[in-house]
Amino acid sequence: MTSPGDASPSSNLNTTIASLATPEGVGGLAVIRISGPDAYLVAQNLCEKEKIKPRYALYTPFRSPVGLEIDSGVLTYFPAPHSYTGEDVVELSCHGGFVVSTELLEACYSFGCVVAQPGEFTRRAFLNGKMDLCQAEAVADVIMSESSAGKDANYKILSGKFSTLILRLKQSLFDLVSKLEGELDFTEDEITPIPTIKKRALVFDVLSQTKDVLSTYSTGKMLQRGALIAFVGKPNVGKSSLLNAILSEERTIVSETPGTTRDAVEVPFLINNFPVRLVDTAGIRRPDDAVEGLGMGFTHQYLEKADLVLNVIDLSLPKNTVEKEIKTFNCSKPVIHVLNKSDLLNNGTKKAWGSKSLGVATTSALQGDGVKNLIKFIYRNLVDRPSLSGGLVLTNSRHKLSLGSVASSLERALFIIDSNDSPEILSVELRDAVSHLDQILGLTSVDEILDNIFSKFCVGK
Amino acid sequence: MTSPGDASPSSNLNTTIASLATPEGVGGLAVIRISGPDAYLVAQNLCEKEKIKPRYALYTPFRSPVGLEIDSGVLTYFPAPHSYTGEDVVELSCHGGFVVSTELLEACYSFGCVVAQPGEFTRRAFLNGKMDLCQAEAVADVIMSESSAGKDANYKILSGKFSTLILRLKQSLFDLVSKLEGELDFTEDEITPIPTIKKRALVFDVLSQTKDVLSTYSTGKMLQRGALIAFVGKPNVGKSSLLNAILSEERTIVSETPGTTRDAVEVPFLINNFPVRLVDTAGIRRPDDAVEGLGMGFTHQYLEKADLVLNVIDLSLPKNTVEKEIKTFNCSKPVIHVLNKSDLLNNGTKKAWGSKSLGVATTSALQGDGVKNLIKFIYRNLVDRPSLSGGLVLTNSRHKLSLGSVASSLERALFIIDSNDSPEILSVELRDAVSHLDQILGLTSVDEILDNIFSKFCVGK
Repeated sequence: MTSPGDASPSSNLNTTIASLATPEGVGGLAVIRISGPDAYLVAQNLCEKEKIKPRYALYTPFRSPVGLEIDSGVLTYFPAPHSYTGEDVVELSCHGGFVVSTELLEACYSFGCVVAQPGEFTRRAFLNGKMDLCQAEAVADVIMSESSAGKDANYKILSGKFSTLILRLKQSLFDLVSKLEGELDFTEDEITPIPTIKKRALVFDVLSQTKDVLSTYSTGKMLQRGALIAFVGKPNVGKSSLLNAILSEERTIVSETPGTTRDAVEVPFLINNFPVRLVDTAGIRRPDDAVEGLGMGFTHQYLEKADLVLNVIDLSLPKNTVEKEIKTFNCSKPVIHVLNKSDLLNNGTKKAWGSKSLGVATTSALQGDGVKNLIKFIYRNLVDRPSLSGGLVLTNSRHKLSLGSVASSLERALFIIDSNDSPEILSVELRDAVSHLDQILGLTSVDEILDNIFSKFCVGK
Repeated sequence: MTSPGDASPSSNLNTTIASLATPEGVGGLAVIRISGPDAYLVAQNLCEKEKIKPRYALYTPFRSPVGLEIDSGVLTYFPAPHSYTGEDVVELSCHGGFVVSTELLEACYSFGCVVAQPGEFTRRAFLNGKMDLCQAEAVADVIMSESSAGKDANYKILSGKFSTLILRLKQSLFDLVSKLEGELDFTEDEITPIPTIKKRALVFDVLSQTKDVLSTYSTGKMLQRGALIAFVGKPNVGKSSLLNAILSEERTIVSETPGTTRDAVEVPFLINNFPVRLVDTAGIRRPDDAVEGLGMGFTHQYLEKADLVLNVIDLSLPKNTVEKEIKTFNCSKPVIHVLNKSDLLNNGTKKAWGSKSLGVATTSALQGDGVKNLIKFIYRNLVDRPSLSGGLVLTNSRHKLSLGSVASSLERALFIIDSNDSPEILSVELRDAVSHLDQILGLTSVDEILDNIFSKFCVGK
């Protein structure tokens, strides 16, 4: 989202920033957002009015510093602290297109605004305590979402559900640390120490909660980037026809979003608004990759990355060969065995292969039989992945890293408890875990981390 | 701006329309606009509130028909008739990106809205009397403007200055027609007839005002499409180097707007925010176009279309040859003679050729001397074109056609007066002129004309 030459946003809140908040291009409306101590003054100048009613949609001409009428539109003033950034905010809704918004922005700059850097509005919202850091990060994730399912996951984080969970973990640990450190200051006569078994139980509980959250990251990543579904199988079993049959059944190819790099062989796609990326591994075999079927090289790489494997088998082979192929298929990832070419069977044999479980589907890529059913199996398999209560999942790699550190600290804490080591060392580990939780919420963040996070935003947010 | 399959907007005002009003793409904000009798009801459903304060920027969750929270954002309700369309209008400002606005729009459709067609909001504004037809057309022209100068011209029309002028012409004619028709009903004893000389003066006055307006169309077209500046001259006089020298001096190549088709040899460019298109006619000569210099074929075609001709001459030729080339240059368009290659002259000769008028400029494309000055000459030449008071110009070809018909009627009316023909025939011609003026304002428009006008709009306006 950053254009070349953009400076990183600063944590200086004394300036008043302005930028286009809507996408560039031709449209009915464009919105310019202004935030900072002089926002009201800039608004007064733009509409040449002494008083502007808070949160009132005022239809007004917008004037340049030399009094030229640039456009007419709606000006809304959101006084601090009840605004997006927590500062005085002014929004100008003007005619769309390239010229009007450019002229209006130039007027804002003449009236004292500075150019807003990517993410600077949200950065200010964070710095002014309107949202914590993981909510702020979720703003960009909501905007960049490519599917409803992905957006829902990010919107839950944006609305603070994930923060509540992190705060709860932090509180549990913090209570324990306070008590432990209390014990250090007093003798056993003055205070009743927490029994070791209780300490252990408390730490263990937070650790297992942390692990539960971590276990949802594979789901969150799927929702963010699309579940990688790899089609594997021997040559000529119909992998590529099956992929195409699925595509033509659903017809919702996801458009490429700028900034998203995907492997050329992946077909981004939505199944019931769930984002997937279909990969026909046959198409990615190297010329020298002689081993067939579940081979080496690229196919193997894709199996490593896959969220779901479709093992395609030629159903017209003898029954025991098919059964052997299912049984001997060795893969650590969730698998659906797809018995393809059902059109080559007579009705009796077809019936015998009727799907008994979600793990086996019978299809005819050629005639389309069973493809809808297979799509249903795929969807059920994907939505059945780990999540927390309310469908909350971990989507952000920074949060995952911090939670990983929390888990490590807690595991060391358990070891310290079990080995009856000194309470001081235990306290250090627990405090370390707390500080990693704080990092997620941005309670101990430094400018460098903020620069990294907000530079990925689009301008105007 | 229309996508394939779009139906044309209808003049049915009973439906409630909704669409994205901001450009598609990734940005901080997206705005959805709803207009029609059920807009308030839809807003109540979306934010689950009984009462919504008019024109108040309400921060609220937006909910789907099944109560799912799609997003949080700002909802503003503009009650009829004080809204863009004159109907109840609701604007939803939500998170940008593809998913949120799509989900919100789907919720609007579930709550009873229909898909807005291109231009349908502005069409309704026109149908509800919020603006006349030439103002409505100017909305699209303001949005599609590629330069500040072009936008200013269109914004003047949008703000009603052009309409005032048309109404004034109409009023003059209408007064005359009323009196003329009064004369038909009464005898000379009952009423004092308008003297012929006065009738003539009145019609002549309106005709000359109409012609004044028509004369500004070449300026308006230049502002809309960019002034076509043709570089002509013999081979090797430095036309192409001169074009490049101008480009590198200003550096503001205009980006191509979708929907604008330009000849590949035209370089769109801004000179002080005035849009121009530079054409080096040497680059467009056909291989068989043997005639040099001011030749035939493409060069000739471009001279026909050009708004300004730069006649480039090699200044290192003998003085009388150069003078002859200036004198014999025969062209009906405004011309600047550019004496290039000044670097080949000694200082004395250079001085002798010092520019004496805006019609002659001395340059060295090679060393850049005089290029800034040439740009200044070009700019002055362009801004010095016909315009009405306040810089008002005619930019719309539909208006130009109507005004052409007005002028024809008035010329016929003058002929009728001069030939002392019957007052009935005169009255018919004058009424015809009035009806052509009405067409500009949309007072006698049919659906077909409206369809044609509004289908060129972007959706959401």
